[in-house]
Amino acid sequence: MEISKERLRNDLLKNGAFGKVSSSGESHGRTVLTGSEADKKVRENFISILQSLDMEIKIDPVGNIVGIWVPETANRNADPVVVGSHLDSVPNGGIFDGPLGVFAGVEAIRAIKQSSHSPACPIQVVSFTEEEGGRFGIGLLGSSVVGGQREESEVLTLEDQNSVTVKEALDSIGFSGKDCLSPSSWRSWLELHIEQGTVLERANVSTGVVTAITGITNCKVEIIGEANHAGSTLMHERTDALVAASEFVKRVEQIGIEISYHDSEFIAVTVGEFEVEPNARNVIPGKVSLSIDIRDTNESVIEYVIRQIKNTLSRIEGEYKINASFETYRSIDSVPMNERAQNVLIDAGEKTENEVMKLPSGGGHDSMNIKNKTEVGMLFARSKDGISHSPDEWTNWDDCKKATQILANAVVDLSCDI
Amino acid sequence: MEISKERLRNDLLKNGAFGKVSSSGESHGRTVLTGSEADKKVRENFISILQSLDMEIKIDPVGNIVGIWVPETANRNADPVVVGSHLDSVPNGGIFDGPLGVFAGVEAIRAIKQSSHSPACPIQVVSFTEEEGGRFGIGLLGSSVVGGQREESEVLTLEDQNSVTVKEALDSIGFSGKDCLSPSSWRSWLELHIEQGTVLERANVSTGVVTAITGITNCKVEIIGEANHAGSTLMHERTDALVAASEFVKRVEQIGIEISYHDSEFIAVTVGEFEVEPNARNVIPGKVSLSIDIRDTNESVIEYVIRQIKNTLSRIEGEYKINASFETYRSIDSVPMNERAQNVLIDAGEKTENEVMKLPSGGGHDSMNIKNKTEVGMLFARSKDGISHSPDEWTNWDDCKKATQILANAVVDLSCDI
Repeated sequence: MEISKERLRNDLLKNGAFGKVSSSGESHGRTVLTGSEADKKVRENFISILQSLDMEIKIDPVGNIVGIWVPETANRNADPVVVGSHLDSVPNGGIFDGPLGVFAGVEAIRAIKQSSHSPACPIQVVSFTEEEGGRFGIGLLGSSVVGGQREESEVLTLEDQNSVTVKEALDSIGFSGKDCLSPSSWRSWLELHIEQGTVLERANVSTGVVTAITGITNCKVEIIGEANHAGSTLMHERTDALVAASEFVKRVEQIGIEISYHDSEFIAVTVGEFEVEPNARNVIPGKVSLSIDIRDTNESVIEYVIRQIKNTLSRIEGEYKINASFETYRSIDSVPMNERAQNVLIDAGEKTENEVMKLPSGGGHDSMNIKNKTEVGMLFARSKDGISHSPDEWTNWDDCKKATQILANAVVDLSCDI
Repeated sequence: MEISKERLRNDLLKNGAFGKVSSSGESHGRTVLTGSEADKKVRENFISILQSLDMEIKIDPVGNIVGIWVPETANRNADPVVVGSHLDSVPNGGIFDGPLGVFAGVEAIRAIKQSSHSPACPIQVVSFTEEEGGRFGIGLLGSSVVGGQREESEVLTLEDQNSVTVKEALDSIGFSGKDCLSPSSWRSWLELHIEQGTVLERANVSTGVVTAITGITNCKVEIIGEANHAGSTLMHERTDALVAASEFVKRVEQIGIEISYHDSEFIAVTVGEFEVEPNARNVIPGKVSLSIDIRDTNESVIEYVIRQIKNTLSRIEGEYKINASFETYRSIDSVPMNERAQNVLIDAGEKTENEVMKLPSGGGHDSMNIKNKTEVGMLFARSKDGISHSPDEWTNWDDCKKATQILANAVVDLSCDI
């Protein structure tokens, strides 16, 4: 079974040109938001490719698209093996994040068709609507309806910043369908995605098998000092919220680094949002509000980080005479990938000449939503410099091909010997 | 010569009630912006008090008001001794910042009138327009025309946020005058102001003589790291601009504290503005822009602080792999008060029972603008907890009286024995 780098490359470049950001120049910036003209073209192109492969098309009410191939050797009613990802992008995003998984699925079907393999069940390729949350503000949107995390009616009435609903946006491009995707009848779901990190690159490995999608806990910290005139409050007399917050930020990073030394699987802790009040040239900062993002696939590690953060705040309250508050406002459980799917992917990798390694995913993916409906596995392809959500996002064509080969091997494994 | 605490208190409370902020409750919040209804009442009240003392009134084109008392014993054409300050406030400011200096001048004249002293020259009381920059954004506005720092035509055409000019604002309340203030013919200028700091309070001294108004240097620092996904960039792989900036902020405070140990007159260094980009929950900060405010009466100390800051940035560039830029965007020279005026004020203090101490001013005052036209001296009255620009700003009535007594003594000294 031979994966064609050329076909895959052509599909990704053609798809990547829709919504091209002209200022991205030589690089491949694109903006594909739900219901936009670019989204319409992306979807129509995808459907035309599926049709050229004689696949049946289904579209559900939230615009998720599925292409169905029923091999001659298959029982039409057998549970299908399903692969895919998403075709939307963040504003000025890259051409691989999402489309690689969709067009790798298409290419896998082409390759299987041309091979001597005899799938015993249908094989489907899915593109989920608005994985990035770029227009309606909620990521993993289409898959959340399929996975049962959100009600279809709730999603259809979500509004963008101009009060346009998801339904109106989909209607306007003709992609509000009537079909139903039922992942609980899927034999397996496999998603290939770019890593968006540097674990594979540093290990010099082209493809990874995801062990689990990270859990995420978001906390909000407020540090209250005393705002005072910068010219008339002596250095010793200050309760500078920014200085105290600076000590805190440094310590939070240190907590993360210390855990990394002992636990090479530890994902990360990040202070991303940071607001100073009154934020004036001549006033000592009186208040800092900041957010912390803690990620790991192991809940107890996240809990340990929170304990360390709380201890740090207590210490800083004493040392800096500030008042601190701490609140967890969002917590998403880690989603482990199924053992069997991981093993199938590892085996599929061993059939190629390329080394495959296991790694956790630090970001969320549609596969999270599918997990409670069926068996789920994920592959990662190496990202150049770990960059994503940028015109500079890149995965070289050989790596795209290698990962697609592994995906195709796994699809064969799951669909032929049932 | 007897200062009346009651009269002074009544003047300050009556003036402080114009523009009262209702939400300030028991405390004395007021908002008096140039050209507002409150400003009109404040000015009319001031003029009516001057008239009740048979003083001549002059108003210049930028709304500065001067009341002139020509004692019977005085040569009408002799250079006057002039005292005063300002009557405007910041939004929801206090009742002492500015008005104390104006009404202490009024009370000094009342007390001298009732005494046996025989001033040989006129004594004037001035209220300068918009010291706080509350409406037109530029502090020390009225005095800058009198001191020659700004052209009258430039100031009159300045616009507020609604494109109303200074001239229109003054016309609307009838305070656009035709007279001219000529400080180069003033014998001396004395300003009493609240300290807005805690030096006097900590020293348990009610009144201070200002040695110099601080120089201010403002710098802008940018720290450039690498924005990356918070979930897919390992702790060791990050170039987190916020972590580097946190180290910088901590070190800047340390520089200030270290200098304070060796130089008890050192004023301060403050990081007041601090902006993080992209400032998103799930993105490692890629850039921090911050401003630094360095104040001291000694230019070489400010230069030393800048050298230390630059050294710190170089070190952080190496240790944190960030790029840093440094720029000085504003530099105001320190303004020393005249030696003779300081001595007159010290002597005036010794004539009371109260200890007087010398101290620098960490904030700017109208006196800065007058300095290059004539001899200038400043007194500070103790501020409770150093608070100002707040409804909680407070200077107790005894301290107001003591400082006014010293001001009056100095006016007598400067006007009687010439």
